[in-house]
Amino acid sequence: MEKLLIGVDFGTDSVRALLVRADGRQLSESVNPYRRWQEGRYCCPEDNQFRQHPLDYLESLEEVLQTLLRGQNTAAVAGLALDATASTPCPVDEHARPLALHPEFADNPEAMFILWKDHTALAEAERINEVAANCPVDYRQYCGGTYSSEWLWSKMLYVLRRDSGIRQAACGWLELCDWVGAELCGLSDPQRLPRSRCAAGHKAMWHADWDGLPPQEFLTAVDPLLAGWRERLAGPCLTADRPIGKLSEKWSRKLGLPPGVVVGGSGIDAHFGAVGAQIQPFKLVKVLGTSTCDIMAVPGFSRCVRGICGQVDGSVLPGMVGLEAGQAAFGDVYAWFRNMLGQAGEVSLSELEAEAAAVAPGSNGLLALDWFNGRRSPDANPQLSGAIFGLRLGSTRGMIYRALLEGTVFGAQAILERLNEEGLPVQEIIATGGISRKSALVMQLCADVFNLPIRIAASEQTCALGAAMFAAVAAGVHPDIMAAMAAMGAGYDREYRPQPVLVPVYRRLYRQYRKYGRLLEEAL
Amino acid sequence: MEKLLIGVDFGTDSVRALLVRADGRQLSESVNPYRRWQEGRYCCPEDNQFRQHPLDYLESLEEVLQTLLRGQNTAAVAGLALDATASTPCPVDEHARPLALHPEFADNPEAMFILWKDHTALAEAERINEVAANCPVDYRQYCGGTYSSEWLWSKMLYVLRRDSGIRQAACGWLELCDWVGAELCGLSDPQRLPRSRCAAGHKAMWHADWDGLPPQEFLTAVDPLLAGWRERLAGPCLTADRPIGKLSEKWSRKLGLPPGVVVGGSGIDAHFGAVGAQIQPFKLVKVLGTSTCDIMAVPGFSRCVRGICGQVDGSVLPGMVGLEAGQAAFGDVYAWFRNMLGQAGEVSLSELEAEAAAVAPGSNGLLALDWFNGRRSPDANPQLSGAIFGLRLGSTRGMIYRALLEGTVFGAQAILERLNEEGLPVQEIIATGGISRKSALVMQLCADVFNLPIRIAASEQTCALGAAMFAAVAAGVHPDIMAAMAAMGAGYDREYRPQPVLVPVYRRLYRQYRKYGRLLEEAL
Repeated sequence: MEKLLIGVDFGTDSVRALLVRADGRQLSESVNPYRRWQEGRYCCPEDNQFRQHPLDYLESLEEVLQTLLRGQNTAAVAGLALDATASTPCPVDEHARPLALHPEFADNPEAMFILWKDHTALAEAERINEVAANCPVDYRQYCGGTYSSEWLWSKMLYVLRRDSGIRQAACGWLELCDWVGAELCGLSDPQRLPRSRCAAGHKAMWHADWDGLPPQEFLTAVDPLLAGWRERLAGPCLTADRPIGKLSEKWSRKLGLPPGVVVGGSGIDAHFGAVGAQIQPFKLVKVLGTSTCDIMAVPGFSRCVRGICGQVDGSVLPGMVGLEAGQAAFGDVYAWFRNMLGQAGEVSLSELEAEAAAVAPGSNGLLALDWFNGRRSPDANPQLSGAIFGLRLGSTRGMIYRALLEGTVFGAQAILERLNEEGLPVQEIIATGGISRKSALVMQLCADVFNLPIRIAASEQTCALGAAMFAAVAAGVHPDIMAAMAAMGAGYDREYRPQPVLVPVYRRLYRQYRKYGRLLEEAL
Repeated sequence: MEKLLIGVDFGTDSVRALLVRADGRQLSESVNPYRRWQEGRYCCPEDNQFRQHPLDYLESLEEVLQTLLRGQNTAAVAGLALDATASTPCPVDEHARPLALHPEFADNPEAMFILWKDHTALAEAERINEVAANCPVDYRQYCGGTYSSEWLWSKMLYVLRRDSGIRQAACGWLELCDWVGAELCGLSDPQRLPRSRCAAGHKAMWHADWDGLPPQEFLTAVDPLLAGWRERLAGPCLTADRPIGKLSEKWSRKLGLPPGVVVGGSGIDAHFGAVGAQIQPFKLVKVLGTSTCDIMAVPGFSRCVRGICGQVDGSVLPGMVGLEAGQAAFGDVYAWFRNMLGQAGEVSLSELEAEAAAVAPGSNGLLALDWFNGRRSPDANPQLSGAIFGLRLGSTRGMIYRALLEGTVFGAQAILERLNEEGLPVQEIIATGGISRKSALVMQLCADVFNLPIRIAASEQTCALGAAMFAAVAAGVHPDIMAAMAAMGAGYDREYRPQPVLVPVYRRLYRQYRKYGRLLEEAL
């Protein structure tokens, strides 16, 4: 009998879902935006505060799945799995319900999910780094050496310090991917419910070396407000091939699904996207959007890689070390320039791209540093900012746009160079995400600058497809994730190859990029 | 009996003329554009080739004076003097006629006036600097230590190397201000006619220390093509208070002027502008336009000032050392940004200025280097270029525009700082030129950054007014230029004073500007 799988992907602006067969053939696709988020509620962009209400997730999840399953053979659905942005945590009550679902916290942004890109917890991250730097064991060693304001402990501490009501009411904190998994399975003990290895490892310093989360003494040294919290977050920390449970009766009814649908392990969106794009050892998957996530999975690797975002055993593929790096702004830089030039509609990114494409590489002395949102990898430094060099009275917007495109790709090359220095030579690039399909110029630039072939994942929903693959493993449709990737992968539909004549041109420009980047770092 | 004076100013795009009384009261004003120049003929902006046809000057001069004098008491005109852009030289025949007035050279750009901003002679300037650097006497010591591609010998050599027809036909080379003076007086011996001290001193390395132009051996060492040229350019080199002669019968008839009108000494436009703006010792006159010219006149000064454009005995005020410095791009930077943002009309400089004015000083980390056209002073370096630092995803065009305005003003402060280091403390700023009257924001920025009061010259035609003052001296209407300035000056109609609370803010930003500037210089 046919078995169908559901993959669900909670992105920044919307939730997306796929219904696929065991051979990967897509039967249905659906997208649903977050309503309150669309209205800009609970956010304060000028303070980098970005919050999402749990009802946005619940309502859009129900709608996206109902739309997905309409007219489909729901009786054949065997498994479901999901991924979500991270670190996107929320304080929960003793039944694992987000505090914002209580009337007294319904409009309190501190009681909601704190979106990955929220940067309100700068002071808390600084404090964590300060204490960690003076510890005999550096608990940041597997997350690139710097703990970020975007991650769980920073955000938790920020809210605990600020809001005494939440301090008293919170019995746990859950990452979005963990909460949705628990909600679908009806798990309600925040101290016992399973946690995603991927999220805990990359965002909460979970590591087997110290038997899980960092010791309580460390957390208490950061701030006494963290007393007791290690225990409260200590559920089993599972790789994504391990199921969370079965779909609850409540959700089965809501969705018209048969009893016994297995809910697979959850994870972070980019990591699932790498799986959906059929990652292989020593192939780097680049998820290219407003920012980038660069994902690798390497067997038998135990060294610490300097200056990337994290490395976690089993975070991408069970049995391998998953590595994550990334750029804090990529497509965002392009959008910034377009928006600076004028109102939407006055000039489009594709017009700018055409003008940039007409500029010969290395012809005009312009050079841009891509750190418009600080630098994430290599060597996180939020103080850094963007720069444009070589401006002349004859510099046109097309020339500048080309320099910005080149700058973001040089930023990507700096990550590859670091991986190489750390004994992880990348042999091929797989690209996914909006820019990989929208900008042929950027992708060709990547091939020329990296001097590596780049294949573009054919699926436009690699994250949800990765979730469906994990659902297939959880439901026993495929024996393991390698088999699921092989059977269900959508493959690649475009390839960019380096143009040998341009490789040395960009090599020279890249050296300039590094030189000017070092100058600015030293000047800070 | 009333005596009237005419001042004529040959600018980059047009010639302007004033008719004034001995007390400075303005009776008439007229402007006439250069027709061929307006059509873009003989120019090649992408190669920095900018040429002007002598007929443009002759035709526009006749028209501008006829318009100026229409309905006026022409019988009372006692004197006329003129200034022009420099170095704007032209090869001439044995009668001091520009070669482009001969049919065989009529369309040859090399036979025309080579406008000040023409940069075709880069290789020739390099050669001159190379030979000068290895001479026992450095003939560049009074022009800031670097000879420019914008100046006479570079341009002459460029044409002599390129065009054998001109090489054979040229009997002399004349600066625009010298040629127009000679033409008006009917002087036709290119080897004997008087030369402007101002132009020869600032643009041709004329100095009393080596008895005039640099020795022939030096010139021949630069290139044998310069053999014999020192002698051919060796007319008397006069300060502007010394008349050139009397208006020729031909021009008196053309203009309906009485016989005996005295033609005063000629000079460079910015220098005459400084006189028109009533320059005084230790007051710096800034002529603020697309680029800037900064002019000082200092009595009893004999030291060499490092890194400015030049210092010439008697170039501004007879009996004092005239100093010139400047920025290669000022208003041009503002126009560049406006043009990059969109088509003309989509956004105006005044809109941008309003947006920039709304940004608090030092509030956003943005910083710009103003070297969009290389750097002129201090320490000329055409290789340098502009840069913008501190770009963030939240950076708006108003913020960037403010940073560009600040960057140009910091560039101006670097000149003041150098003058101060060299024993020339500037005590007050007098501003003239388009930007001084158009941009209150830039002028207030200047006052705050310089921490000096700035007075704005009331006349919008300070160059032509300065010429009228020299005409008055030549005609014996006033005994000397100090008396002429006192009697005829139009004074100041606005003053900007430093805002004490902002002085330390800009002091901090200026230190950043210097720091980042040094980084880029070292990186070259």
